[in-house]
Amino acid sequence: MARDTRDRILEASLALFNARGELNVSTNHIADELEISPGNLYYHFRNKDDIIEQLFARFELRMDKALTAPEERLPTLEDIWLQLHLVYECIWDYRFIYRDLVDISSRNRKLRMHFSRILKRASEGAIEVMRGLAAAGILRASVEEIRATATNILVIATFWLNFAAVRGEHDERESINQGIYQVMLLIAPFLRDTERAQLNHLAGAYLR
Amino acid sequence: MARDTRDRILEASLALFNARGELNVSTNHIADELEISPGNLYYHFRNKDDIIEQLFARFELRMDKALTAPEERLPTLEDIWLQLHLVYECIWDYRFIYRDLVDISSRNRKLRMHFSRILKRASEGAIEVMRGLAAAGILRASVEEIRATATNILVIATFWLNFAAVRGEHDERESINQGIYQVMLLIAPFLRDTERAQLNHLAGAYLR
Repeated sequence: MARDTRDRILEASLALFNARGELNVSTNHIADELEISPGNLYYHFRNKDDIIEQLFARFELRMDKALTAPEERLPTLEDIWLQLHLVYECIWDYRFIYRDLVDISSRNRKLRMHFSRILKRASEGAIEVMRGLAAAGILRASVEEIRATATNILVIATFWLNFAAVRGEHDERESINQGIYQVMLLIAPFLRDTERAQLNHLAGAYLR
Repeated sequence: MARDTRDRILEASLALFNARGELNVSTNHIADELEISPGNLYYHFRNKDDIIEQLFARFELRMDKALTAPEERLPTLEDIWLQLHLVYECIWDYRFIYRDLVDISSRNRKLRMHFSRILKRASEGAIEVMRGLAAAGILRASVEEIRATATNILVIATFWLNFAAVRGEHDERESINQGIYQVMLLIAPFLRDTERAQLNHLAGAYLR
């Protein structure tokens, strides 16, 4: 029972944060939404930051899973495609974190360190996948190019929603699709002509 | 005389915003810094947003100049290099705008529209330069790749400082250099082997 309420609070908080922006949602709003008393909410969570930290832990678990590369074989283009999907789905489901990332991470050192860890892991994963494609003869890039591209992938994925907002775009779902497209085209020029054309073609499907 | 005070207020505001973050600086702080009365400051500016808008107008003028491509000849790699320097110098000099970009642009619709205009102009500029390199036979890319790369360049340049902050880097000057490197390596894979090697080599100088 208590477990249920705790889960419901986390789910309602996530939905409200995503819909209205975390800064615009108070613990009272969350309690109202669930039709429970603020006291009941405080029985489960110390304060809003406590809720955010719990949500962040779920996000981190999910992202770790999305970032897990296929084992014991070389990665293919389809693997990258699938992985990008999983990563962006995770970004979409926890978009309040990305929307207010600079603010949240400057306010809460613990979350910043966790996010920094995710970035490190994602960077290592991207480097590994690109090295695998190079080993399979599909991709041609210098060590520096692979490292720099991994970093560029992270910047694009991390700040894509913010970029869309600054450009005045309102359809975040559509923006996410374009974010996947942008990362695919970041990798395209390193590929052999056949795969490069294939990727250009596949990526085009993302822009309807 | 009045003109002098106005300029001094703008310069002091820019320095304070850059050093402490715009959200942490009030008009009182600015007046204190200049050892003038708040009344004197309000004689020149309606409020802090008025100061921000005036600084933004200067920033826009400067960025427009940095984004002007060489005319009546095809661009070279050195042109891109120089242009990136000018653009990043401008980002550095007005870094408070970039640091709080999402916040500032969601708070002030007018600034968001101006920033959106700068992004559009920068994107067109990047596309034009890449087309020029393609026409000169130095670069090979599809129309979609050129467009997507222009967008990726904008995202990297715009959010580089935020990315560095989220990663926990404190030396913003050093971060700016790395930002230039990242954009150069975004273009590298599209180049002919000679120029690609040249760029890899040049870009390496940016990481000491």
